[in-house]
Amino acid sequence: MSPMELYEKLNAQGDKVRSLKSAKAEKAEIDAAIQLLLKLKVNYKQMTGQDYKAGCPPSENLIVSNNGPTADGSDGEDVVDPWNVSASSAKGVDYDKLIVRFGSSKIDKELLDRIEKASGQRPHHFLRRGIFFSHRDMHQILDAYEKHKSFYLYTGRGPSSEAMHVGHLIPFIFTKWLQDAFDIPLVIQMTDDEKYLWKDLTLEECHRFTVENAKDIIACGFDVKKTFIFSDLDYMGASPEFYRNVVKTQKHVTFNQVKGIFGFTDSDCIGKISFPAIQAAPSFSSSFPQIFGGKKDVPCLIPCAIDQDPYFRMTRDVAPRIGLLKPALMHSTFFPALQGAQTKMSASDPNSSIFLTDTPKQIKNKINKHAFSGGKDTVEEHRKYGGNTEVDVSFLYLTFFLEDDEKLEKIREDYTSGALLTGELKKILIETLQPMIAQHQERRKQVTDEIVQQFMTPRPLNFKF
Amino acid sequence: MSPMELYEKLNAQGDKVRSLKSAKAEKAEIDAAIQLLLKLKVNYKQMTGQDYKAGCPPSENLIVSNNGPTADGSDGEDVVDPWNVSASSAKGVDYDKLIVRFGSSKIDKELLDRIEKASGQRPHHFLRRGIFFSHRDMHQILDAYEKHKSFYLYTGRGPSSEAMHVGHLIPFIFTKWLQDAFDIPLVIQMTDDEKYLWKDLTLEECHRFTVENAKDIIACGFDVKKTFIFSDLDYMGASPEFYRNVVKTQKHVTFNQVKGIFGFTDSDCIGKISFPAIQAAPSFSSSFPQIFGGKKDVPCLIPCAIDQDPYFRMTRDVAPRIGLLKPALMHSTFFPALQGAQTKMSASDPNSSIFLTDTPKQIKNKINKHAFSGGKDTVEEHRKYGGNTEVDVSFLYLTFFLEDDEKLEKIREDYTSGALLTGELKKILIETLQPMIAQHQERRKQVTDEIVQQFMTPRPLNFKF
Repeated sequence: MSPMELYEKLNAQGDKVRSLKSAKAEKAEIDAAIQLLLKLKVNYKQMTGQDYKAGCPPSENLIVSNNGPTADGSDGEDVVDPWNVSASSAKGVDYDKLIVRFGSSKIDKELLDRIEKASGQRPHHFLRRGIFFSHRDMHQILDAYEKHKSFYLYTGRGPSSEAMHVGHLIPFIFTKWLQDAFDIPLVIQMTDDEKYLWKDLTLEECHRFTVENAKDIIACGFDVKKTFIFSDLDYMGASPEFYRNVVKTQKHVTFNQVKGIFGFTDSDCIGKISFPAIQAAPSFSSSFPQIFGGKKDVPCLIPCAIDQDPYFRMTRDVAPRIGLLKPALMHSTFFPALQGAQTKMSASDPNSSIFLTDTPKQIKNKINKHAFSGGKDTVEEHRKYGGNTEVDVSFLYLTFFLEDDEKLEKIREDYTSGALLTGELKKILIETLQPMIAQHQERRKQVTDEIVQQFMTPRPLNFKF
Repeated sequence: MSPMELYEKLNAQGDKVRSLKSAKAEKAEIDAAIQLLLKLKVNYKQMTGQDYKAGCPPSENLIVSNNGPTADGSDGEDVVDPWNVSASSAKGVDYDKLIVRFGSSKIDKELLDRIEKASGQRPHHFLRRGIFFSHRDMHQILDAYEKHKSFYLYTGRGPSSEAMHVGHLIPFIFTKWLQDAFDIPLVIQMTDDEKYLWKDLTLEECHRFTVENAKDIIACGFDVKKTFIFSDLDYMGASPEFYRNVVKTQKHVTFNQVKGIFGFTDSDCIGKISFPAIQAAPSFSSSFPQIFGGKKDVPCLIPCAIDQDPYFRMTRDVAPRIGLLKPALMHSTFFPALQGAQTKMSASDPNSSIFLTDTPKQIKNKINKHAFSGGKDTVEEHRKYGGNTEVDVSFLYLTFFLEDDEKLEKIREDYTSGALLTGELKKILIETLQPMIAQHQERRKQVTDEIVQQFMTPRPLNFKF
């Protein structure tokens, strides 16, 4: 029985008890009906982690161990949560399965057409190529936007070190595109408190990483008049409205629920246990009165990697219960490690990716040495059978960073046919990334501490709400 | 085995493993020693809720279900935690037993003498009469004070309704006396976030109760130049330093620990689970940089009712692990309900106590009608056998509010001998409380919203640190 079926059965049983009572039925009969009602309530609580309340149906994204069956990887499925991503296949995570498991929707042709129509922009290549592949409630966002009701963007980063790699830019590149296409405000949360709670780092280190990472984010080209970047450690202590939304969320989520969603245990510190509410709060426009003038009904769209979805399933579950809007989401696939698509990259392994601080020579050497190849072992075999672009990391990286669709298609054809060798493919990637990273480094140099300070000061943005 | 014994055994076993390794002992022998070490670590974690760390002994106030054995009242002992107080005897809670159970120290003659010597003041009658009966680390506070190292006071209130009763004034009357005697800063925490999390109230209601209750607190005569009153809902969002201490505390307390200390369950919301860190943070002077200029080593003394001790056992356990000072405490007994000393008063039952808003007539009627009497059933019996001051609520109230020791002693003798009748005793209490409450109401009228605002504005106080 699904939670909704159980909920409906409970409603029916409640009605039955009431009608027996008003009909002054025999005591034994009423008692039996009440006993069954109580039993159903216990089952409901076990299933949903929540008390049954008439008029309050279980939410669509039920908080019952969505990741549960795969948390230990025992059934051979992909593991995807905010702290672990691992795929059972060399092609990486099976994203179609994930859409089913998480209960989100696929970004399809129809949605791309609507985005193009509403924004007047050709969809970004991350959309065209299925890198942002899944969403929640994008149609509502567009319905409202077409009626001239604006929305805002929220994304974030956990600043666990100074070093950011190219994969970390994906949500920011895409968010920048969305912001330009729709001309809307953007808030970027730096979860330095989360990193302090999870890692062996001091508060001062985490805060310093926030500032350093903010420079890389700003270097993506964000407009200070339209963008607010905030450190949790600072903003929590600078906005009573933000804390009010945190505490509202914390009141409406139980330990049972975060246990189910995030796999927390009794040995986890109480900071971790309550943190999800802090990642939830920026989804509500009332957390930023300086931007939205106290309005609590400005819809929020969150572009993020799919591993962050558990936070927002929880947020969407809580929102209607505290009188606030559910955020909409757009989910990206993971950026593969140089070694292959089976894992996310690690900021602690310098050879697992291209870092934003790498020199042209480092980029060249890393790609030549570490980028997993989908080519064949010998030139002869490769010419004969062709390479496999589905697992070739150099090709996968090009799908992220080579904007020209025709060029990319040509490379795919040539590599698959064997006309293009692995070394040649790698060279194309190297020549794509070297100038891109160099330009990023140039832009980052322009980002002074004062500019970071401007972005991180709570203030109105150039929008009227 | 106690946690400390297990800790020492672990140290010894660690030494053994190291010496076996450096002596290049046989692999089997080393492995066996390591196996035992690991097993001891698991035991240690189970016993203390913490990971074993060399050089980091278990704290004196171990976080292992201090209230556990009595939490369900099944062994007939008193139940005392922040949300439940119930006594098994009509005389009320057995405070001597509580000192043993909580591991605190009795406030004895020696300590009273030291307080008198250090402050130059005769100890308050709450001290002379054992109403403040227990403490932690008061001698350290006085050692430092005698060396001209100042300290500060921290107390608080959970604003669950507009209505405060005379019992709620006890910590504030005593804190005022301490502040005057030692001339030190005072911070008063209004836990409106806690009340929101625990009760069926809105944030707005809880915040309004904070302001209303602050008026009654200010009416106790606090000096705005020396006292900072703060709402959690406001101050959390106004002080990054406060939030930093909250998150530091939250990193160092596990769900296992708060389960043991506070009896939380998996069905409790994550706000409740993490709240104890918010009550802990004001114990650290670095939470108030505007008052202490960023100094993190100003000692803190917390006068509070004994039911709040679990919060501060936890705080004292965490403090050294985050490089901060343990707060000292002074604990009061409970103020009895009119109906008798077996329970704390309830703000929701208007007849359970004298409220600060009661008229002279209400005071008279309530005492005459509801105050539990220790007298005999008939005048004849009473004259013959005398009354029992240990359970007589009117007499108990006088121990709180009649300052004159000789008068109180005379009343005790006369009531015990039967010379004083219950009606006469009640009359003395009525005539003590009526002017006291009327004066309080007069002072409260003078407290405008602007004055509350002044007290609640984060600002420097008239002290140099």
